[in-house]
Amino acid sequence: MPKLILCRHGQSVWNAENLFTGWADVDLSEQGKNEAITSGKKLKDQGIEIDIVYTSLLERAIKTTFHLLNESDQLFIPVIKSWRLNERHYGDLQGLNKDDAREKFGEEQVHIWRRSYDVAPPKQGEEQRNDYLNDRKYEHLDRRVMPESESLKDTLIRVIPYWNDQISQQLLDGKTVLVSAHGNSLRALIKYLENVSDEDIIGYEIKTGAPLIYELTDDLQVIDKYYL
Amino acid sequence: MPKLILCRHGQSVWNAENLFTGWADVDLSEQGKNEAITSGKKLKDQGIEIDIVYTSLLERAIKTTFHLLNESDQLFIPVIKSWRLNERHYGDLQGLNKDDAREKFGEEQVHIWRRSYDVAPPKQGEEQRNDYLNDRKYEHLDRRVMPESESLKDTLIRVIPYWNDQISQQLLDGKTVLVSAHGNSLRALIKYLENVSDEDIIGYEIKTGAPLIYELTDDLQVIDKYYL
Repeated sequence: MPKLILCRHGQSVWNAENLFTGWADVDLSEQGKNEAITSGKKLKDQGIEIDIVYTSLLERAIKTTFHLLNESDQLFIPVIKSWRLNERHYGDLQGLNKDDAREKFGEEQVHIWRRSYDVAPPKQGEEQRNDYLNDRKYEHLDRRVMPESESLKDTLIRVIPYWNDQISQQLLDGKTVLVSAHGNSLRALIKYLENVSDEDIIGYEIKTGAPLIYELTDDLQVIDKYYL
Repeated sequence: MPKLILCRHGQSVWNAENLFTGWADVDLSEQGKNEAITSGKKLKDQGIEIDIVYTSLLERAIKTTFHLLNESDQLFIPVIKSWRLNERHYGDLQGLNKDDAREKFGEEQVHIWRRSYDVAPPKQGEEQRNDYLNDRKYEHLDRRVMPESESLKDTLIRVIPYWNDQISQQLLDGKTVLVSAHGNSLRALIKYLENVSDEDIIGYEIKTGAPLIYELTDDLQVIDKYYL
């Protein structure tokens, strides 16, 4: 039976400082690293054998992947990295402390950006935007697919083609697939997989660094789900 | 211009104990890890931008890759893992201390296995052989391609198809390619690339954890080579 394991990266240094992160490429905190190591040990203890991993281009997800595979003696597994699994792009909010954002844009507006399904924050300023367009990570992409700022709906629209073309293909082959990604790219997958409403997905919380396991039927209906 | 970077993994725990390793999947020693970290920092200092990495299925090479990319802020680069880049299979010598091997098989015989081009050591015993055949790392392989014991020539015969089909294709596209592998799988590549004689390749020493950079012409002739 196919098995899907979703893992939100361990705590990052910006999570720890309560900053909007999005596509900013920040490291795991020491706590985040330890979360991933602990989960890797649990994978090993429970004998969970992963066949393939999909992760984002952001180092907090890639490092979480490394620790999960390293601690469970599975470093030899293929790991495929794609921008489509990156976190929701937070536009001009990236790098802002959440309290500062409330001060700058107003509490209600920030609440709308964080908790609405289809409202995107403002785009980045010129300088940050240029750094982003010149980031070597994304040089293989058509500029037109690089988001300037995303709602959760926008994130879902770029994540789901990757699910359909890549991830689900492995599951349909009966594989055990780890998706090591981010709060909102994983929300997008969960919304699609479980048909969650626009309202409910916004409040759906996913633990950091803790693999969430879905047991699936051969045609990818959810039988059971639980944290490792 | 295409650039090829060969990196032999940092010192492993069995290197440190003077054991024959081959396909035994042993970890880096603390020194080996530090070698990789130091080299990663040099990659960053010199602004060397890697486009793609090929590595083996063995954790000492995969971890060396991780540290090289992590320290040079290039974790987002694609990393492709293949058994074809594994170390030379040392058959029944694997796990033996080099002094014990000399005692068991005679000094001259061990010298021949280590320093001849086309003489393979004896095959593994039944038990080790069964563990090896049941190793999940290799379950995707036709049993007939899994070596039982290899000479350097045998290693070259399985490495070069991968060079021709995968690695050289990237170089012919003008890419900078890192091959993160092992003393003998790298010797095989170097023999082919530089047309080294059977006699000379045997004594060709490659530093551990130290990237060896080849500047190449568009049709992959060597212009220059140097350690990072």
